[in-house]
Amino acid sequence: MSRKRSLSGIKPTGMPHLGNYLGMIQPAVDLQEDHDAFYFVADLHSLTSTSGPAQVREHTYDVTAIFLAFGLDPTRAVFWRQSDVPEVCELAWVLSCLTPMGLLERAHGWKAAKDRGNSGAENHGLFAYPVLMAADILLYDSDVVPVGKDQVQHVEMTRDMADKFNRVFEPTFKLPAARVKKDVGTIIGTDGRKMSKSYNNTIPVFLPPKQLRKAVMKIETDSKGLEDIKDPDTCNVMTLYRLFAGPDEIASMEAAYRAGGYGYGHAKQALFEAMDASLGPHRERYNALRADESMLEDILQEGGRRARAVAIPIMDTVRERTGIGAPRRAR
Amino acid sequence: MSRKRSLSGIKPTGMPHLGNYLGMIQPAVDLQEDHDAFYFVADLHSLTSTSGPAQVREHTYDVTAIFLAFGLDPTRAVFWRQSDVPEVCELAWVLSCLTPMGLLERAHGWKAAKDRGNSGAENHGLFAYPVLMAADILLYDSDVVPVGKDQVQHVEMTRDMADKFNRVFEPTFKLPAARVKKDVGTIIGTDGRKMSKSYNNTIPVFLPPKQLRKAVMKIETDSKGLEDIKDPDTCNVMTLYRLFAGPDEIASMEAAYRAGGYGYGHAKQALFEAMDASLGPHRERYNALRADESMLEDILQEGGRRARAVAIPIMDTVRERTGIGAPRRAR
Repeated sequence: MSRKRSLSGIKPTGMPHLGNYLGMIQPAVDLQEDHDAFYFVADLHSLTSTSGPAQVREHTYDVTAIFLAFGLDPTRAVFWRQSDVPEVCELAWVLSCLTPMGLLERAHGWKAAKDRGNSGAENHGLFAYPVLMAADILLYDSDVVPVGKDQVQHVEMTRDMADKFNRVFEPTFKLPAARVKKDVGTIIGTDGRKMSKSYNNTIPVFLPPKQLRKAVMKIETDSKGLEDIKDPDTCNVMTLYRLFAGPDEIASMEAAYRAGGYGYGHAKQALFEAMDASLGPHRERYNALRADESMLEDILQEGGRRARAVAIPIMDTVRERTGIGAPRRAR
Repeated sequence: MSRKRSLSGIKPTGMPHLGNYLGMIQPAVDLQEDHDAFYFVADLHSLTSTSGPAQVREHTYDVTAIFLAFGLDPTRAVFWRQSDVPEVCELAWVLSCLTPMGLLERAHGWKAAKDRGNSGAENHGLFAYPVLMAADILLYDSDVVPVGKDQVQHVEMTRDMADKFNRVFEPTFKLPAARVKKDVGTIIGTDGRKMSKSYNNTIPVFLPPKQLRKAVMKIETDSKGLEDIKDPDTCNVMTLYRLFAGPDEIASMEAAYRAGGYGYGHAKQALFEAMDASLGPHRERYNALRADESMLEDILQEGGRRARAVAIPIMDTVRERTGIGAPRRAR
């Protein structure tokens, strides 16, 4: 059992876009090969912004079906809904009592939320978020937490809390390590900027072919005509094509750009075909999986059971070492 | 079932003193006569100050035995250990996401804690305390919350959170009312100031007779001699005597004060005897109860089961209305 346990939480937002897929989903699925992979749908975290109950529920199934469609194996990886392991909120309270306010006030994420909001109107969940995140990590005895650069500080805070618990009570928690995700390069959106919902330039990962083609046709290019020689190094279509086509296809499109007589319409059609060939089988799988909510729920429930099997003994130890809860003999 | 549900949390601190007994314990026990009384030992709250696991556990049993010794009837009142109903932490997280930071920053208790502490070093549990308290109240559909004046604001904050939930999601929570405890008069300590641990002037409620006598003999008086005429209205001994003696005994001691020839030593002996007569039977009951931890644990467990029977359907409704957790059919 030398495999390290890797833990990730995924917020239940709507359909992910290509940037999410290439930057997060595919690496997470790959990780199950050589890690004890623990993934949860972070529905408790999603409550910090109000999207409504139907959306939280729907998006939880969306995320589950997407991971399965991209090859997550729920018999190897543990995949569950955060709130189905209520011990995480209990551990969060215990950690709260060990966490200096100053630590939370220095969190970059909180500072950014404060800058965006009206002073005092931001909800306490946003402020307490790093404590719940620490509980997410420590409750499962995680070794590594793959994160973007912006989340490294939160893993450091988790280490601080774990270390504090270990010193105030007894050595209990492993100190988890942040693993900064390999840079997959910025995935550009239809306008050439980084693909991001806030720029409204995303291409959702699963679109029916017609809509996918339409989205690809909207990618911005310069205004060169069919006959003009084009620069494959500055073209958004080319940049995306490189992510979905094979080396020979890429080389041949680059040559066509440089030769002229090859229009952006042609390039977009080729990009659409490459994307559809790459994503189509996943999309079909997704559609079939997503249609069966009771199967998705079963997978989440089974994941929840396996996650709790890890969480419960750890929380029992926490209770024993802090003095809360009934002594073991009474339970 | 027109009885109102009244809820109180009691921190598991050491042996209560006479001020606690007269101001809190006796009124709480009396309340079971005409209320659906819900009492919990607030072990989760106690983690905001670190006393260590053994103390939390011991003090939980102390508090339980004390309430029983003073007549709490666990077949009528529901008496449990806060952490045995883990749903309370889950509800606290949900409420956190609805609670503006400004509300918590304005809490008197938090401001006082901040003034006492080093800026930024106070733990987050102290800051988040009103959210957990709101969860304590709302999880049990409480009608009234008997509190001291200093806690009225926290009940108002609870109403704010309940109202916010009801508006953002669906009408779910009853808005609880604070009931300010009847003023039992300031219980003075051995030095004439308000009895308080911070003045080191308390008389613990249960002391073996020898120690109780010793504590009474230390009560401060003026330096009048045996023969002097004394003022019954300004004497600490007399003040405490009034709480434990009958009207005839009180009148007769007052007369002796005014007549002279009656020393403070006599008065203290009479006070000790009155206290011992009043508290002695409770003390003996306490000693017997406290010696049987497994019986105390059974009472807490049974209380926990009854408390959870109320909490679980409420938390299920909260999950359903916020979108977290498995849909009911899957559970």
